Amino acid sequence: MKAKEKEVPLEDKQEQAANWFYSLQALICEAFEKLEDDLSGGPKASLPAGRFEKTPWEREKSEEPNASGSLLQGGGTMAVMRGRVFEKVGVNVSRVHGKFSKDYAKQMPGAEESDGHFWASGLSLVAHLQSPLVPAVHMNTRMIMTSKSWFGGGADLTPMFESAEDTQDFHAAFKDCCDSFDPAYYPEFKEWCDRYFFLPHRNEPRGIGGIFYDYLDRKNWDEDFAFTKAVGRTFLDIYPKLVARSMNRDWTDEEREYQLVKRGRYVEFNLLYDRGTQFGLKTGGNTEAILMSMPPEAKWP
Amino acid sequence: MKAKEKEVPLEDKQEQAANWFYSLQALICEAFEKLEDDLSGGPKASLPAGRFEKTPWEREKSEEPNASGSLLQGGGTMAVMRGRVFEKVGVNVSRVHGKFSKDYAKQMPGAEESDGHFWASGLSLVAHLQSPLVPAVHMNTRMIMTSKSWFGGGADLTPMFESAEDTQDFHAAFKDCCDSFDPAYYPEFKEWCDRYFFLPHRNEPRGIGGIFYDYLDRKNWDEDFAFTKAVGRTFLDIYPKLVARSMNRDWTDEEREYQLVKRGRYVEFNLLYDRGTQFGLKTGGNTEAILMSMPPEAKWP
Repeated sequence: MKAKEKEVPLEDKQEQAANWFYSLQALICEAFEKLEDDLSGGPKASLPAGRFEKTPWEREKSEEPNASGSLLQGGGTMAVMRGRVFEKVGVNVSRVHGKFSKDYAKQMPGAEESDGHFWASGLSLVAHLQSPLVPAVHMNTRMIMTSKSWFGGGADLTPMFESAEDTQDFHAAFKDCCDSFDPAYYPEFKEWCDRYFFLPHRNEPRGIGGIFYDYLDRKNWDEDFAFTKAVGRTFLDIYPKLVARSMNRDWTDEEREYQLVKRGRYVEFNLLYDRGTQFGLKTGGNTEAILMSMPPEAKWP
Repeated sequence: MKAKEKEVPLEDKQEQAANWFYSLQALICEAFEKLEDDLSGGPKASLPAGRFEKTPWEREKSEEPNASGSLLQGGGTMAVMRGRVFEKVGVNVSRVHGKFSKDYAKQMPGAEESDGHFWASGLSLVAHLQSPLVPAVHMNTRMIMTSKSWFGGGADLTPMFESAEDTQDFHAAFKDCCDSFDPAYYPEFKEWCDRYFFLPHRNEPRGIGGIFYDYLDRKNWDEDFAFTKAVGRTFLDIYPKLVARSMNRDWTDEEREYQLVKRGRYVEFNLLYDRGTQFGLKTGGNTEAILMSMPPEAKWP
């Protein structure tokens, strides 16, 4: 496998991965805007169709570590839409590099050996829908390099009112995706997802799960990258179908109220447990981009 | 001082402290219900005056540690009101004892020497107001015993739109309170409060501060207890005055909207940084009582 590894130089890997995340962002934004156009029923149908606003951001080229002791350079593009189907959806891509603080380097594979140096690129998406009958969703894929290099990510669905059909189709799509690479993937990544998206203080899962994977490095970069692309494409294929299935239905005030309470749980998970959020905020990341995942409105009645 | 210490037996201290927290809860509930009765203007004046609902809770007498590895026994009383002045206010008293997990015992003064055994009682209050022109407030006082014994607590104000008069009166009240015990208290406790109630990821304070103190043990239990009582009485005196000052005013939709966004910051602080919340949730405390501090509604637009 070593010989194969050499076929893709480091810079090419970074270029290919980051390019993919940027193209996936464009594809998802296009698909979500089409859903905005297609809305034909329900209480929000008279509103104008939403459009993504894209905001590129770049870190100052500082050579000084930030307050957290890490040095972070690079940038990204936040794409956010406040629409009539998607009450608030953020699709963020970033490509950053720098040097972890000593403390943080201890937690990241291969980072002590790289003297803290790292490179990372990824896409992160959270969608909060107007309709309580359409599930909220999270999807994230990323490539990280220290002295090691790996992929991670996944997608999970948070229905307010579970639909057996949605649950089955969402799981089936990711099972197919995983199985086409390795039959061992799906059981492992599904279980990892259930374990990760769980609120111990409520003793309840965040949603119905999906897949979650990390530290994926089978010493075959092309295939690991292909898997990560397949996860993105699977999301792009299945989630808009679930949205289209229910977005034109009417909903009641009680259903909306329940959605706002359920969103409170989402906030609790993200701020109390989510590693990405905690990592981002505590290492001096872009707060606006990180907290794009917060719901537009939530209740703790 | 040792001689003086012996004058108050352990059980009496616990009894006196817990009794005080319960009486303070009754006094505060009474004062807040009076404000509900007194409302005479503003957009909510036609609603019925709110009343506190009190819910006693008690832990099962389990001898088994919970999921966090701690053993927690005892109980408390949650008092919550959803009214026309107070959109949601929780005034919780608890009196618990048990055994910290080994990990947690390392973080608590004197807990390794007590083999993890502890006793704690306290009152914790968070008020979210209907009016964006009335500041939200937090107040908490507590007594904790391991092999050591100490008091902690404080009060801090979170106006949505700062009023110089409110800020001045709130600070002056706690300065007077502190100064009557020790002129060194106020500067130290005010600075501690500013340091503690700060959101590093936003680089902004939670509100205008107040006082914060912890590990107070001057080897004169009577006086330390008297100070903690004085903090409670000061709160009981000053905060209702600030509420009465502005509660009858009208407000705009824009002011309400700003309040909901500011409340989002409150959520961020409580879930990301608040030691009490993190402690409670991660040691298997009463989730409902701990998350009583969450605002009834919040926005991240």
